[in-house]
Amino acid sequence: MRYSFRDDYSEGAHPAILKRLQETNTIQALGYGYDPWSKQARELLKSIIKQPQAAVHFLCGGTQTNLVAISAFLRPYEAVIATQLSHIAVHETGAIEYTGHRIIEVPTRDGKLTPAQIEKVVAVHRDEHSVRPRLVFISQATELGTVYTLEELAALRRCCDALGLLLYIDGARLSNALGATQQTLAQIARYADAFYLGGTKNGALLGEALVIVNSALQPYFRYHLKQKGALLAKGRVLGIQFLVLLENDLYLHLARHANKMAQRLAEALKQKGFNFLVPPQTNQLFVWLPKEVVQKVRSVFDFHVWIEEKERCCVRLVTSWATTKEMVEAFLALLP
Amino acid sequence: MRYSFRDDYSEGAHPAILKRLQETNTIQALGYGYDPWSKQARELLKSIIKQPQAAVHFLCGGTQTNLVAISAFLRPYEAVIATQLSHIAVHETGAIEYTGHRIIEVPTRDGKLTPAQIEKVVAVHRDEHSVRPRLVFISQATELGTVYTLEELAALRRCCDALGLLLYIDGARLSNALGATQQTLAQIARYADAFYLGGTKNGALLGEALVIVNSALQPYFRYHLKQKGALLAKGRVLGIQFLVLLENDLYLHLARHANKMAQRLAEALKQKGFNFLVPPQTNQLFVWLPKEVVQKVRSVFDFHVWIEEKERCCVRLVTSWATTKEMVEAFLALLP
Amino acid sequence: MRYSFRDDYSEGAHPAILKRLQETNTIQALGYGYDPWSKQARELLKSIIKQPQAAVHFLCGGTQTNLVAISAFLRPYEAVIATQLSHIAVHETGAIEYTGHRIIEVPTRDGKLTPAQIEKVVAVHRDEHSVRPRLVFISQATELGTVYTLEELAALRRCCDALGLLLYIDGARLSNALGATQQTLAQIARYADAFYLGGTKNGALLGEALVIVNSALQPYFRYHLKQKGALLAKGRVLGIQFLVLLENDLYLHLARHANKMAQRLAEALKQKGFNFLVPPQTNQLFVWLPKEVVQKVRSVFDFHVWIEEKERCCVRLVTSWATTKEMVEAFLALLP
Amino acid sequence: MRYSFRDDYSEGAHPAILKRLQETNTIQALGYGYDPWSKQARELLKSIIKQPQAAVHFLCGGTQTNLVAISAFLRPYEAVIATQLSHIAVHETGAIEYTGHRIIEVPTRDGKLTPAQIEKVVAVHRDEHSVRPRLVFISQATELGTVYTLEELAALRRCCDALGLLLYIDGARLSNALGATQQTLAQIARYADAFYLGGTKNGALLGEALVIVNSALQPYFRYHLKQKGALLAKGRVLGIQFLVLLENDLYLHLARHANKMAQRLAEALKQKGFNFLVPPQTNQLFVWLPKEVVQKVRSVFDFHVWIEEKERCCVRLVTSWATTKEMVEAFLALLP
Repeated sequence: MRYSFRDDYSEGAHPAILKRLQETNTIQALGYGYDPWSKQARELLKSIIKQPQAAVHFLCGGTQTNLVAISAFLRPYEAVIATQLSHIAVHETGAIEYTGHRIIEVPTRDGKLTPAQIEKVVAVHRDEHSVRPRLVFISQATELGTVYTLEELAALRRCCDALGLLLYIDGARLSNALGATQQTLAQIARYADAFYLGGTKNGALLGEALVIVNSALQPYFRYHLKQKGALLAKGRVLGIQFLVLLENDLYLHLARHANKMAQRLAEALKQKGFNFLVPPQTNQLFVWLPKEVVQKVRSVFDFHVWIEEKERCCVRLVTSWATTKEMVEAFLALLP
Repeated sequence: MRYSFRDDYSEGAHPAILKRLQETNTIQALGYGYDPWSKQARELLKSIIKQPQAAVHFLCGGTQTNLVAISAFLRPYEAVIATQLSHIAVHETGAIEYTGHRIIEVPTRDGKLTPAQIEKVVAVHRDEHSVRPRLVFISQATELGTVYTLEELAALRRCCDALGLLLYIDGARLSNALGATQQTLAQIARYADAFYLGGTKNGALLGEALVIVNSALQPYFRYHLKQKGALLAKGRVLGIQFLVLLENDLYLHLARHANKMAQRLAEALKQKGFNFLVPPQTNQLFVWLPKEVVQKVRSVFDFHVWIEEKERCCVRLVTSWATTKEMVEAFLALLP
Repeated sequence: MRYSFRDDYSEGAHPAILKRLQETNTIQALGYGYDPWSKQARELLKSIIKQPQAAVHFLCGGTQTNLVAISAFLRPYEAVIATQLSHIAVHETGAIEYTGHRIIEVPTRDGKLTPAQIEKVVAVHRDEHSVRPRLVFISQATELGTVYTLEELAALRRCCDALGLLLYIDGARLSNALGATQQTLAQIARYADAFYLGGTKNGALLGEALVIVNSALQPYFRYHLKQKGALLAKGRVLGIQFLVLLENDLYLHLARHANKMAQRLAEALKQKGFNFLVPPQTNQLFVWLPKEVVQKVRSVFDFHVWIEEKERCCVRLVTSWATTKEMVEAFLALLP
Repeated sequence: MRYSFRDDYSEGAHPAILKRLQETNTIQALGYGYDPWSKQARELLKSIIKQPQAAVHFLCGGTQTNLVAISAFLRPYEAVIATQLSHIAVHETGAIEYTGHRIIEVPTRDGKLTPAQIEKVVAVHRDEHSVRPRLVFISQATELGTVYTLEELAALRRCCDALGLLLYIDGARLSNALGATQQTLAQIARYADAFYLGGTKNGALLGEALVIVNSALQPYFRYHLKQKGALLAKGRVLGIQFLVLLENDLYLHLARHANKMAQRLAEALKQKGFNFLVPPQTNQLFVWLPKEVVQKVRSVFDFHVWIEEKERCCVRLVTSWATTKEMVEAFLALLP
């Protein structure tokens, strides 16, 4: 098989995770998240974000987390505001709509949503003939790998407060955003009503940690989990993994490695004169390559072609906790 | 902690599963079930059931499998027929209703559904003022640990055929049913339009293998999976586990061990004069114990109190692939 | 056509309603319930029930009213408690389940639900593996034509208060219940969190008046109406009709006429020695007749056969505001 | 009250409809659309469109018709393609999303959707990570009062056939479109898999006639109607009205009158030098007026302000079957 820069979930789990699964394997524990490791992981995460009142739940994947959380937070007539590139709008097969909620999409070039866009949406949804916008969905890092600055997050928070909206952050690649900036989980938690810290794309076999900061959104959440098939019998499988990821900041170390690999790629690509769809910030690069280059590289490396034009393609290169320097250099060596 | 007979998912995974996860860990693979192990596991399962046209999908848990499958198979006005003790009726937090479908419940004493009951339901649902019964839901083994005989399954199949109904089998503990009888997966597959083979309760970290035998129910199923948050990014995690479980009939060996432990318990309990709610057949026992006995045993062993009466309790004892003879004997030693 | 005792909606509307529709026809008015007649009707109804803070909405039919109200009042994991004979359980094609909610059914002989049954249901729904019972659904009069006494209603109210449940009353035939007792709309409103006063079965072309007494359930209700297709553009059509029905207690006069016709039938049937499924109280009779009698009467009169046994049938006879004495006597004259 | 050009449902019903309701009022009939008038109206409509195999159902309103039809026609993962101005996208409070389906919106200036836009949408929805586009939703006349030509409809039909899509036409103002062109109901029926002929906005008290031309979409439709609260007990109320509207082409005469009134307005407005948002074709005009003119006219006439800019407004003027020449002239007389 060709080496893959297709995504950040091409391998199994970080060895420390497998090791802990092994070590704890024969210990009996209660199911459904009541095991000691899940408890420890929840407490650890709450102490990291300095929000002891927060509720933490471990789920299996990003689409599942988004659909359970958003449908739990909204009443039937309430809608989500998100960019047209948001994962929930384009890559979740209408999961949010299946739970009954409209996504109001706004255009974006860099993957980000702005307060001005939110205000405009709210302004035109005025009565019972339209849905009521209620939840702002953003991804940090965005679907294009860009990162909201703390100032941008604060502005979104102020906008949501002023308009009575909830702010939800899809953190499938939140660690990569943190690793690329000086932002901390505690800061993210201050701005969001709820967010999730992704495990699947950062070294776990599977798993996302949903943090519900806003107390008003917490009651009965386990009912929502169970009803949507998101309450794992062996909750330990998720708890153990997040315990390992959170201990000693492993989640940050893994994300920084991925970012560093991407940065090496990005710098070399820039030097070679290639352009990017958006400026590279995290572990996803969107770079324009001539078709003949794509063809050549593709015989050795696997990656996603994002946009196909006549003479060039925008390809997406994704690095991960498992990406090796050798493969990065091998990829670069193929380029003109 | 007290030793637990609470359920069959109190430990991690069978060592062979962890070993294979370890061995394959650094190999890159495509996501969403397109990895080689998932492919092999699907092919192996299809060959075991001798239904090359079947479709196999791996999901994370039982409630998830039931809700995705049933909602995919039905049109909005169609309903499920199930016993009042069925898992979907009592222990899935209205997951099926959340997808829009009514469950028509019929009484049961032994956990089983009969053709006569189905016929009666169909007879009273005659026009558009009522839902249209369309799918018969049974569990093999049942929620009370009993097992449908092949004759009973054949009769249900004939009944469904005569009435234009689908037959769906919840196989959370299907291996235990097979292990307790001469029934084979191939036979189950001949009677069901769809069924699942449980992994979570039979030695996997998580995972259920849904088999859609009826070709008419197969198209676009992956869309349903994705929409309900049931398409795992690292599908390999499920594929690898089922590959291990299916190779050399490990799923049967594990279930037979669990059954054997339960049988030892059951025989000793009978000898001691205790009565059962239903005759023990698989790895779940429902035994009536005097309250003082329950109290005594409970200080050392954990289990579920199923029914509480004034002077006695019906307790549920569940054994698993991981239950040891020593613990079985220790439990029995505590009894009068 | 044979004269029909099949239901109470076999004719058009009471003449006073048609007259008012005619008189107001060319007056322009705002849509969606903002017309002056709807406003007047809402105010009149609120003054009749002496609950100025109540919210009143006019909808098109009973199933629609039930589904919009119940789905608006509940969160996704919450369930309804109702009898197994309740309209929502058997004659609404799974409308409540389509909105995502489970109906927990309890047995009944006379169509009524008791506090003891409710307590038992709540007692066994204890955690997130089951739905959370939240709304008690009763019909006044019941689907069998029986009537809850004020004492029974008060006991249900106390039970609901003690358990944190909502009490919702389906009043498709509420006027008949009031007409058959000394109960008033104001009393009903004191016991219910929400109820509806039926128009369709009491002389309107169409229409039900939903009264939301509990302020906590009122916000954003028009959004729910619109989203479910229940907000009529020409809301005047409903408002005018309810204005006519409520003015001078027309709703009561019509219901009393229907009850009186039923009473005449019931008394004569009793005298002739026929038995009833339940004691007749309102405008629906369920009477056991020998098959040869049914056959004979059926050639002249249309009605619903409720239960068919070998030698006898339980037939349902329904009278209405439009039933004439002559037809009642003609029916009786056919009986042995 | 000011005279209203706000919409085409400000009055009651055309006198002929009220008259027929009166004449038939005391005749007993079966409920739920099995009355003789509904039957006649269905047969008449089928003969008008020359599609004897079509299925006709009468519903109460436009949003209800759209949501029942679209949710009945689609599987859970299937989506609708519609313009960003379509009624389902902006004025139905997320009714379609509530039934679980995503609306894929495309931009429009004149309210129309083009085959090229449809092809583009289908091209980017390729696998199970996205919804599957399946139904094309258009309105004839459009939400801006424009009319698809027969050529445009034929092109949409060919596009849908080529791509395996259904074509659904919202005909809230279909009569106005027919009245403004040489198009016939039979032609519309040839292009659509399903469409509805609006009554509410064309002289009925309420009511829309849904025509399901495509036989594959017809089975069990009454179950969908009932489940969504859209099956009227006194179906006669809808049947009688459509019988009157369809006899002697009353629906066309009423729409032509509305169009004629709009045309008079449009011509005078043009002569006075005012511009239109889109060229006027049916009974809705969108005209740009200076703010001082709007202010002046508004004291005497009621209408909807569609777009508000600094110095001018785009106002919507709607005429109906009930609009009088006198009021049209009075409106024009106020203009500079």
